Amino acid sequence: MPLGEFELIRRFFADCGAERGDVRLGIGDDGALLAPPPGETLVAVVDTLVEGTHFLPGTPAASVGHRALAVNLSDIAAMGGRPLWATLALTLPVAEPGWLGEFARGFGALARRHAVALVGGDTTRGPLGVTVQVLGCVPEGSALRRGGGRPGDLLCVTGTLGDAARGLDLERAGGEPANAAEAWLRERFLFPTPRLALGTTLREHASACIDVSDGLLGDAAKLCEASGCGAEIDLRRLPLSAALRARQGVAEAQRYALEGGDDYELLFALPPGQLVALERRWPARSGVQAQSTARTVEPSWTVIGQLCAADGLKLRDGETVNQVAARGFDHFVN
Amino acid sequence: MPLGEFELIRRFFADCGAERGDVRLGIGDDGALLAPPPGETLVAVVDTLVEGTHFLPGTPAASVGHRALAVNLSDIAAMGGRPLWATLALTLPVAEPGWLGEFARGFGALARRHAVALVGGDTTRGPLGVTVQVLGCVPEGSALRRGGGRPGDLLCVTGTLGDAARGLDLERAGGEPANAAEAWLRERFLFPTPRLALGTTLREHASACIDVSDGLLGDAAKLCEASGCGAEIDLRRLPLSAALRARQGVAEAQRYALEGGDDYELLFALPPGQLVALERRWPARSGVQAQSTARTVEPSWTVIGQLCAADGLKLRDGETVNQVAARGFDHFVN
Repeated sequence: MPLGEFELIRRFFADCGAERGDVRLGIGDDGALLAPPPGETLVAVVDTLVEGTHFLPGTPAASVGHRALAVNLSDIAAMGGRPLWATLALTLPVAEPGWLGEFARGFGALARRHAVALVGGDTTRGPLGVTVQVLGCVPEGSALRRGGGRPGDLLCVTGTLGDAARGLDLERAGGEPANAAEAWLRERFLFPTPRLALGTTLREHASACIDVSDGLLGDAAKLCEASGCGAEIDLRRLPLSAALRARQGVAEAQRYALEGGDDYELLFALPPGQLVALERRWPARSGVQAQSTARTVEPSWTVIGQLCAADGLKLRDGETVNQVAARGFDHFVN
Repeated sequence: MPLGEFELIRRFFADCGAERGDVRLGIGDDGALLAPPPGETLVAVVDTLVEGTHFLPGTPAASVGHRALAVNLSDIAAMGGRPLWATLALTLPVAEPGWLGEFARGFGALARRHAVALVGGDTTRGPLGVTVQVLGCVPEGSALRRGGGRPGDLLCVTGTLGDAARGLDLERAGGEPANAAEAWLRERFLFPTPRLALGTTLREHASACIDVSDGLLGDAAKLCEASGCGAEIDLRRLPLSAALRARQGVAEAQRYALEGGDDYELLFALPPGQLVALERRWPARSGVQAQSTARTVEPSWTVIGQLCAADGLKLRDGETVNQVAARGFDHFVN
């Protein structure tokens, strides 16, 4: 007997997320009833993952569930927000209990880790796709935005860059990982870590913030455009994981770091006067990085350049500085 | 040159909805910033429309845009809520300006009519599908729910039933409408009217409410189950439009009214003591109905039966009463 829509929701999603006292009514009616925290502004984000566009056919369902929530939590982090509630719109060709159980496990583990309640959703039949909306909050007037950067601000990024893009290439090639580095790179694509704790800290220090989802160059260009300035990025300062460097060599690793998508790290502008204060709370990265596991270790961050008055992005490599044509991933022109 | 994702958002969606003073930051950053109304509870709803499942390939884009928002506004209405903000996740095989312009026109017109701001979204490439989330509000503790009905409450429904299901069949058959009745039935499917004004009024009178999206029998069963009771529905009281009766004859029209989906009317339980008070504010329908245009006329409502202590649904036709196997539309078992 096929699994019905209501049974499916009851079985896999009724207890999927965290329990929260501000959920007056969760899954099961025409809508959810939610009590917003007094004195806070809501942050609303939404992202869709479509099979064949954002993940490969055959991707483990736990990864699809994790990523569908993680990419939204990353947007909340980029605004300096604290996540509260999520809704899940899931379109499936068939309701396959094994797949659904794994999907809910991936989604639910991440939701509970960040105290996010799953308060509603919609389950429909069609080509596999997931749209998640997350609602979060920030104290009034304190949200991070893309447009607050000023010439002279340091350009900084959390974690390491390029791992996920390389991981996706490895996933695409298929087969078992050849070694621990390959396995780690794949994990970085399959289970990205939203930088929520650092995001809320940055509210008190950073002048602008965006998450790196479409590639560093593309997202840096967006931050610069919104801030009405340009930036110079120092190639040699790009934070590259040991796994990526071991697997690719530095030049290729830098290309992944600049152009690869799906990192879900935070790119932020830091007024120089805030450098010491932020370092005191979150030590910055320097020199060669130790390899870390993607799921658990809180990220350090790295100064990779500086905002400048002139428009556009420049790349510095030692003494050489080149203007770059910035472009990130665009679904309709790539 | 293909239309890029950011250009697409700027051109079609930046000014699509209503302007609202409580939107601190709208489209264009990692998230939207929203100021919730003090003393109110938020209502969050989400619904997906997928081409081939919820609408036919070739459906006018203005209808897809309208329906994607309308089905969500209908859920807000069923909770007695006032809509505030919407997000739009749009998955498209190609970015076709003509289609997008019409889609945005349909979505935007309905949004502005109900003062809904479009505050964010996501545009991705893939099989055509639309997920809309709407956030609304109700005064604390006043939301309508499915589970408040009690034996003896009158079972009532807004508008007329079955038009949209018949309209969908006519759309499926294709060609031009043969007459005004056919054109009107198609409109009822393509441009459903969310019953928002009546929904907020019902907060003060109804004991339970649900919107009729999956067919009267299925949704009545949900209201009854949540309320822990049954219901008897009087076939001869079902509100049937003149267009549906003219086109189908009464028996077939009744079948559409009972089992057809996509009506987006409100089904509610009304304690008998509230009948006069509600009729004073919204005259109920009686006898033969005049045909009305679907988009503009506010609905009247009709008493179609009564909740009872015994489980399940009964259908009365004159002196004959039959128990029915209630079922609504289910994406995974139909």
